[in-house]
Amino acid sequence: MKVVLHHRHPRGVDDALEQVQGVKLIRTSSDDEVQENLQTSEILVTFRWNDRFRSPSLRWIQSISAGVDQFPAEELEQSGVVLTSARGVHGPQVAEHAFALLLALTRGIGVAMRDAATETWKMRTGDELAGKTMGILGLGTIGEEIARRAAAWGMKVIGTKRDPASYSGVARAVFPPDETIEVFRLADCVVSVLPDTPETRGVVGAAELNALEGGWFVNVGRGSAVDEPALVAALEKGVLRGAGLDVFVQEPLPEGSPLWHHPRVVMTPHTAGLSPEYGPRLARIFEANLAALNGDGAWVNRIV
Amino acid sequence: MKVVLHHRHPRGVDDALEQVQGVKLIRTSSDDEVQENLQTSEILVTFRWNDRFRSPSLRWIQSISAGVDQFPAEELEQSGVVLTSARGVHGPQVAEHAFALLLALTRGIGVAMRDAATETWKMRTGDELAGKTMGILGLGTIGEEIARRAAAWGMKVIGTKRDPASYSGVARAVFPPDETIEVFRLADCVVSVLPDTPETRGVVGAAELNALEGGWFVNVGRGSAVDEPALVAALEKGVLRGAGLDVFVQEPLPEGSPLWHHPRVVMTPHTAGLSPEYGPRLARIFEANLAALNGDGAWVNRIV
Repeated sequence: MKVVLHHRHPRGVDDALEQVQGVKLIRTSSDDEVQENLQTSEILVTFRWNDRFRSPSLRWIQSISAGVDQFPAEELEQSGVVLTSARGVHGPQVAEHAFALLLALTRGIGVAMRDAATETWKMRTGDELAGKTMGILGLGTIGEEIARRAAAWGMKVIGTKRDPASYSGVARAVFPPDETIEVFRLADCVVSVLPDTPETRGVVGAAELNALEGGWFVNVGRGSAVDEPALVAALEKGVLRGAGLDVFVQEPLPEGSPLWHHPRVVMTPHTAGLSPEYGPRLARIFEANLAALNGDGAWVNRIV
Repeated sequence: MKVVLHHRHPRGVDDALEQVQGVKLIRTSSDDEVQENLQTSEILVTFRWNDRFRSPSLRWIQSISAGVDQFPAEELEQSGVVLTSARGVHGPQVAEHAFALLLALTRGIGVAMRDAATETWKMRTGDELAGKTMGILGLGTIGEEIARRAAAWGMKVIGTKRDPASYSGVARAVFPPDETIEVFRLADCVVSVLPDTPETRGVVGAAELNALEGGWFVNVGRGSAVDEPALVAALEKGVLRGAGLDVFVQEPLPEGSPLWHHPRVVMTPHTAGLSPEYGPRLARIFEANLAALNGDGAWVNRIV
């Protein structure tokens, strides 16, 4: 079957989809091409939505992203178009990335790399995660992947979730979003996997960072969840022991930002979600859903 | 009781020992002072041995190190002096440090830190540990701490041990030292925790590194286990994807060494064993052994 792939996608997604049996993949290089090909195709794989992608022949959209807020779900449902998400595709690499940033802070990898640039051999005593408490902002699929790894390494885990009552996982205490500051009070390190929504903007502010005094903060969600000037101030004042940042309010991080060079910061350029396993994992979800479209088996991650 | 503490010891060991009930800690600043105080003391805490430390009043030596090859065990036994090791004191921090170095390679922390120095935003696709095979050279107490963490994160674990028959842990296959190259053939990443002994010198050579082609090598044991020119050559040729090094043949790492700056290297200055928990953990072993010396309970980590 013809499958239209949006021109913006993580590396390897095209090759992985092409290997799914029965797929004739249409690669595109612009929204115009997506629109044109959708006139004769039933399937769209994309993480962007454009109103021009509406088409009478469209029957199913497989999102490349875990979040699907960008799609007009209600309208799709009314048109009988199925929407499925890529939930589960990011978990392993984002969880490992969160620990890469956190351990780079606790074991002094960042400062040692800066020392190496000047051939400076300076021993500093790092710290241990075992026995400490990790707070996770956003105990969804990705958050739980982080939580399980932390618990397996002897950490206590707490966190936040929009609906704490619906939580079933390894965390010992789960708070609603309006009690986020409790997590900062109780934890030794806090990891945010919060998406960018009106409710999450600036959730991590001066009060929260002060409550984490002496701890580490890691962000593998979205930069907008953090009041960045407050974060810089907390680092300057030594309130935080360190920050591990994969995401920023403005990306690429602007020239001259103190976050590029701060000795207490370890940073990566929004790469937590990248993995050679991304394409293969998405293709497995896609394959199951292609079968479901043809009446064979259940949908995976169906939204509408 | 009077306890003589050798002048060279990790930070925090003195304070932790001083808090053990019944201890009158004698801090020293030279081997002469150690010798002098041992004339009237039964207990020595040290990780160095000096023949001048022999004393008729000496009844027990608590080593600060996990390895005790530096002590004249046979002579001590004949003199009725008990020797206990610090086995277990290093495990958690060295295990976390090994993962800090490994994840810094797989998730591109090292290269991102080098990019940050020039304010360069360059996204690179990292990799995942889950599902991969970790080889551990030296499945002793520390090696097993690493193995358990790897297995808990979905990795397969194999390794080497002087006496494979005596192994009981999470590794699926354990090879004797003379089959070390098999571990490099089968693993995606290899972590060495080998000590410096005549048998371990240069165990990781060109043949082993070639067998690991496309993989990562991490050393948190001793630098002497590695043929360093062969390691540099393997990095230059791109045989290895990366090396995470806490230890080197010569320390501090000499000026001009390519390991300071190689883009595939992440390094720390022999800090894997450092931790604020080092002293408290040693003090717990010491406390149990102090009781044993006074006839109350069993010795911990008794060598002779």
